[in-house]
Amino acid sequence: MPLSLHHIVIDAHDLPSLSRFWAEVLRWRILSEREREVVIGPDETAPVGICFMPVTGHKVVKNRLHLDLTSAAEDREAEIERVLALGARRADVGQSGEESWTVLADPEGNEFCVVRPKTTLIT
Amino acid sequence: MPLSLHHIVIDAHDLPSLSRFWAEVLRWRILSEREREVVIGPDETAPVGICFMPVTGHKVVKNRLHLDLTSAAEDREAEIERVLALGARRADVGQSGEESWTVLADPEGNEFCVVRPKTTLIT
Repeated sequence: MPLSLHHIVIDAHDLPSLSRFWAEVLRWRILSEREREVVIGPDETAPVGICFMPVTGHKVVKNRLHLDLTSAAEDREAEIERVLALGARRADVGQSGEESWTVLADPEGNEFCVVRPKTTLIT
Repeated sequence: MPLSLHHIVIDAHDLPSLSRFWAEVLRWRILSEREREVVIGPDETAPVGICFMPVTGHKVVKNRLHLDLTSAAEDREAEIERVLALGARRADVGQSGEESWTVLADPEGNEFCVVRPKTTLIT
Protein backbone atom coordinates (compact mmCIF):
# COMPACT_ATOMS: atom_id res chain seq x y z
CA MET A 1 0.00 0.00 0.00
CA PRO A 2 1.54 3.33 -1.04
CA LEU A 3 1.41 6.45 1.09
CA SER A 4 -2.01 7.92 1.67
CA LEU A 5 -3.37 10.88 3.57
CA HIS A 6 -4.39 9.71 7.02
CA HIS A 7 -4.83 12.62 9.42
CA ILE A 8 -4.78 16.37 9.42
CA VAL A 9 -2.97 17.09 12.68
CA ILE A 10 -3.79 20.25 14.62
CA ASP A 11 -1.57 21.37 17.49
CA ALA A 12 -3.80 22.25 20.43
CA HIS A 13 -3.58 23.66 23.93
CA ASP A 14 -6.91 22.24 25.06
CA LEU A 15 -7.35 18.92 23.26
CA PRO A 16 -10.78 17.97 24.68
CA SER A 17 -12.23 21.39 23.93
CA LEU A 18 -10.73 21.98 20.47
CA SER A 19 -11.50 18.46 19.27
CA ARG A 20 -15.12 18.83 20.34
CA PHE A 21 -15.37 22.20 18.60
CA TRP A 22 -14.26 20.65 15.31
CA ALA A 23 -16.36 17.51 15.79
CA GLU A 24 -19.43 19.73 16.19
CA VAL A 25 -18.48 21.97 13.26
CA LEU A 26 -18.15 18.97 10.93
CA ARG A 27 -20.73 16.78 12.69
CA TRP A 28 -17.99 14.19 13.15
CA ARG A 29 -17.42 11.79 16.04
CA ILE A 30 -14.66 11.41 18.60
CA LEU A 31 -12.99 8.22 17.35
CA SER A 32 -10.32 7.90 20.03
CA GLU A 33 -9.33 10.00 22.99
CA ARG A 34 -6.13 9.88 24.99
CA GLU A 35 -4.41 12.52 27.06
CA ARG A 36 -2.02 13.43 24.25
CA GLU A 37 -4.05 12.48 21.17
CA VAL A 38 -7.69 12.93 20.21
CA VAL A 39 -8.88 11.73 16.80
CA ILE A 40 -12.14 12.77 15.16
CA GLY A 41 -13.69 11.64 11.89
CA PRO A 42 -16.98 10.92 10.18
CA ASP A 43 -16.56 7.27 11.19
CA GLU A 44 -13.80 4.69 11.67
CA THR A 45 -13.74 3.76 7.99
CA ALA A 46 -13.35 7.29 6.60
CA PRO A 47 -10.02 7.79 4.85
CA VAL A 48 -9.21 11.13 6.49
CA GLY A 49 -9.69 12.36 10.05
CA ILE A 50 -8.38 15.16 12.23
CA CYS A 51 -5.94 14.42 15.04
CA PHE A 52 -5.30 16.87 17.88
CA MET A 53 -1.94 16.80 19.63
CA PRO A 54 -0.59 18.95 22.47
CA VAL A 55 1.59 21.98 21.87
CA THR A 56 3.24 24.38 24.28
CA GLY A 57 3.98 27.39 22.08
CA HIS A 58 1.30 29.93 21.26
CA LYS A 59 0.17 30.77 17.76
CA VAL A 60 2.15 33.75 16.46
CA VAL A 61 1.57 33.95 12.70
CA LYS A 62 -1.17 33.09 10.23
CA ASN A 63 -1.15 29.35 9.64
CA ARG A 64 0.35 28.21 6.32
CA LEU A 65 -2.10 25.31 6.21
CA HIS A 66 -5.80 25.82 6.78
CA LEU A 67 -9.06 24.02 6.14
CA ASP A 68 -11.71 25.07 3.65
CA LEU A 69 -15.23 23.97 4.50
CA THR A 70 -18.18 24.11 2.17
CA SER A 71 -21.95 23.70 2.37
CA ALA A 72 -24.97 24.05 0.15
CA ALA A 73 -25.47 27.71 -0.80
CA GLU A 74 -28.81 27.91 0.98
CA ASP A 75 -27.32 26.59 4.24
CA ARG A 76 -24.23 28.77 4.19
CA GLU A 77 -25.24 31.71 6.39
CA ALA A 78 -26.98 29.51 8.93
CA GLU A 79 -23.94 27.24 9.11
CA ILE A 80 -21.63 30.22 9.65
CA GLU A 81 -23.85 31.44 12.49
CA ARG A 82 -23.88 27.93 13.98
CA VAL A 83 -20.06 27.78 13.90
CA LEU A 84 -19.75 31.25 15.44
CA ALA A 85 -22.05 30.12 18.24
CA LEU A 86 -19.80 27.09 18.81
CA GLY A 87 -16.87 29.40 19.55
CA ALA A 88 -15.42 30.48 16.21
CA ARG A 89 -14.79 34.14 15.43
CA ARG A 90 -14.47 36.12 12.24
CA ALA A 91 -10.82 36.57 11.28
CA ASP A 92 -8.93 39.18 9.30
CA VAL A 93 -6.16 37.77 7.14
CA GLY A 94 -6.05 40.79 4.85
CA GLN A 95 -9.10 39.89 2.80
CA SER A 96 -10.95 42.79 1.14
CA GLY A 97 -14.40 41.70 2.22
CA GLU A 98 -15.42 41.30 -1.42
CA GLU A 99 -14.37 37.65 -1.58
CA SER A 100 -16.79 34.81 -2.02
CA TRP A 101 -15.42 33.08 1.05
CA THR A 102 -15.70 33.85 4.75
CA VAL A 103 -12.64 33.69 6.97
CA LEU A 104 -13.16 32.38 10.50
CA ALA A 105 -10.84 31.20 13.26
CA ASP A 106 -11.34 28.37 15.72
CA PRO A 107 -11.15 28.97 19.50
CA GLU A 108 -7.33 28.62 19.40
CA GLY A 109 -6.99 31.05 16.50
CA ASN A 110 -6.52 28.60 13.63
CA GLU A 111 -7.91 30.21 10.50
CA PHE A 112 -10.39 28.34 8.31
CA CYS A 113 -12.68 29.38 5.47
CA VAL A 114 -16.24 28.68 4.44
CA VAL A 115 -16.15 28.65 0.65
CA ARG A 116 -18.66 28.47 -2.16
CA PRO A 117 -20.33 25.14 -2.79
CA LYS A 118 -18.11 22.57 -4.43
CA THR A 119 -20.04 22.39 -7.70
CA THR A 120 -19.03 25.92 -8.62
CA LEU A 121 -15.44 25.58 -7.50
CA ILE A 122 -13.91 23.20 -9.99
CA THR A 123 -13.78 24.85 -13.38
CA MET B 1 -26.18 20.25 3.14
CA PRO B 2 -24.27 21.05 6.33
CA LEU B 3 -20.64 22.11 6.40
CA SER B 4 -18.14 19.54 5.24
CA LEU B 5 -14.39 19.43 4.84
CA HIS B 6 -13.56 20.39 1.27
CA HIS B 7 -9.89 21.32 0.91
CA ILE B 8 -6.73 21.40 2.91
CA VAL B 9 -5.20 24.69 1.76
CA ILE B 10 -1.42 25.05 1.68
CA ASP B 11 0.17 28.48 1.19
CA ALA B 12 2.87 28.16 -1.46
CA HIS B 13 5.56 30.24 -3.13
CA ASP B 14 5.83 27.99 -6.19
CA LEU B 15 2.34 26.60 -6.84
CA PRO B 16 3.15 24.47 -9.90
CA SER B 17 6.13 22.88 -8.18
CA LEU B 18 4.66 22.31 -4.72
CA SER B 19 1.37 21.00 -6.07
CA ARG B 20 3.22 18.50 -8.25
CA PHE B 21 5.37 17.39 -5.32
CA TRP B 22 2.26 16.57 -3.27
CA ALA B 23 0.44 15.00 -6.22
CA GLU B 24 3.39 12.65 -6.70
CA VAL B 25 3.70 11.92 -2.97
CA LEU B 26 0.02 10.93 -2.74
CA ARG B 27 -0.29 9.63 -6.32
CA TRP B 28 -3.07 12.18 -6.81
CA ARG B 29 -3.98 14.17 -9.91
CA ILE B 30 -3.97 17.88 -10.73
CA LEU B 31 -7.71 18.59 -10.79
CA SER B 32 -7.57 22.26 -11.71
CA GLU B 33 -4.77 24.70 -12.28
CA ARG B 34 -4.91 28.48 -12.35
CA GLU B 35 -2.23 31.06 -11.68
CA ARG B 36 -3.41 31.60 -8.10
CA GLU B 37 -5.00 28.23 -7.29
CA VAL B 38 -4.00 24.65 -7.98
CA VAL B 39 -6.18 21.82 -6.70
CA ILE B 40 -5.08 18.18 -6.41
CA GLY B 41 -7.05 15.13 -5.34
CA PRO B 42 -7.45 11.41 -5.96
CA ASP B 43 -10.22 12.28 -8.45
CA GLU B 44 -12.99 14.86 -8.93
CA THR B 45 -15.43 12.93 -6.74
CA ALA B 46 -13.17 12.56 -3.70
CA PRO B 47 -14.50 14.45 -0.69
CA VAL B 48 -11.18 16.04 0.26
CA GLY B 49 -8.42 17.55 -1.87
CA ILE B 50 -5.46 19.84 -1.34
CA CYS B 51 -5.54 23.39 -2.69
CA PHE B 52 -2.37 25.48 -3.15
CA MET B 53 -2.65 29.25 -2.95
CA PRO B 54 0.05 31.92 -3.26
CA VAL B 55 1.72 33.49 -0.24
CA THR B 56 4.36 36.18 0.02
CA GLY B 57 5.71 35.67 3.54
CA HIS B 58 8.28 33.02 4.28
CA LYS B 59 7.76 30.20 6.74
CA VAL B 60 9.13 31.24 10.15
CA VAL B 61 7.79 28.74 12.71
CA LYS B 62 6.76 25.10 12.82
CA ASN B 63 3.31 24.75 11.27
CA ARG B 64 0.44 24.26 13.72
CA LEU B 65 -1.35 22.08 11.17
CA HIS B 66 0.39 19.26 9.39
CA LEU B 67 -0.46 16.13 7.44
CA ASP B 68 0.09 12.58 8.62
CA LEU B 69 0.57 10.04 5.85
CA THR B 70 0.51 6.30 6.29
CA SER B 71 1.35 3.21 4.27
CA ALA B 72 1.54 -0.52 4.70
CA ALA B 73 4.37 -1.41 7.09
CA GLU B 74 6.29 -3.30 4.42
CA ASP B 75 6.19 -0.32 2.06
CA ARG B 76 7.10 2.32 4.61
CA GLU B 77 10.85 2.66 4.14
CA ALA B 78 10.63 2.51 0.36
CA GLU B 79 7.92 5.15 0.39
CA ILE B 80 10.01 7.43 2.61
CA GLU B 81 12.94 7.06 0.22
CA ARG B 82 10.64 7.79 -2.73
CA VAL B 83 9.36 10.97 -1.06
CA LEU B 84 12.90 12.11 -0.19
CA ALA B 85 13.85 11.62 -3.82
CA LEU B 86 10.89 13.82 -4.84
CA GLY B 87 12.33 16.71 -2.84
CA ALA B 88 11.32 16.17 0.78
CA ARG B 89 13.92 16.32 3.55
CA ARG B 90 14.07 14.93 7.06
CA ALA B 91 12.97 17.51 9.61
CA ASP B 92 13.75 18.10 13.27
CA VAL B 93 10.78 19.29 15.32
CA GLY B 94 12.30 18.21 18.61
CA GLN B 95 11.51 14.53 18.27
CA SER B 96 13.75 12.12 20.17
CA GLY B 97 14.32 9.74 17.28
CA GLU B 98 12.67 6.94 19.24
CA GLU B 99 9.20 7.70 17.88
CA SER B 100 7.30 5.35 15.61
CA TRP B 101 6.79 8.16 13.09
CA THR B 102 9.18 9.88 10.71
CA VAL B 103 9.14 13.66 10.38
CA LEU B 104 9.76 15.07 6.91
CA ALA B 105 9.30 18.49 5.32
CA ASP B 106 8.14 19.34 1.82
CA PRO B 107 10.27 21.53 -0.50
CA GLU B 108 8.84 24.70 1.09
CA GLY B 109 9.49 23.48 4.63
CA ASN B 110 6.00 22.31 5.60
CA GLU B 111 6.39 19.50 8.09
CA PHE B 112 4.57 16.20 7.57
CA CYS B 113 4.83 12.77 9.17
CA VAL B 114 4.82 9.21 7.95
CA VAL B 115 3.08 7.26 10.70
CA ARG B 116 2.40 3.66 11.52
CA PRO B 117 -0.21 1.86 9.44
CA LYS B 118 -3.76 2.85 10.25
CA THR B 119 -4.83 -0.51 11.65
CA THR B 120 -2.56 -0.11 14.65
CA LEU B 121 -3.39 3.54 15.30
CA ILE B 122 -6.97 3.46 16.51
CA THR B 123 -7.15 1.82 19.90
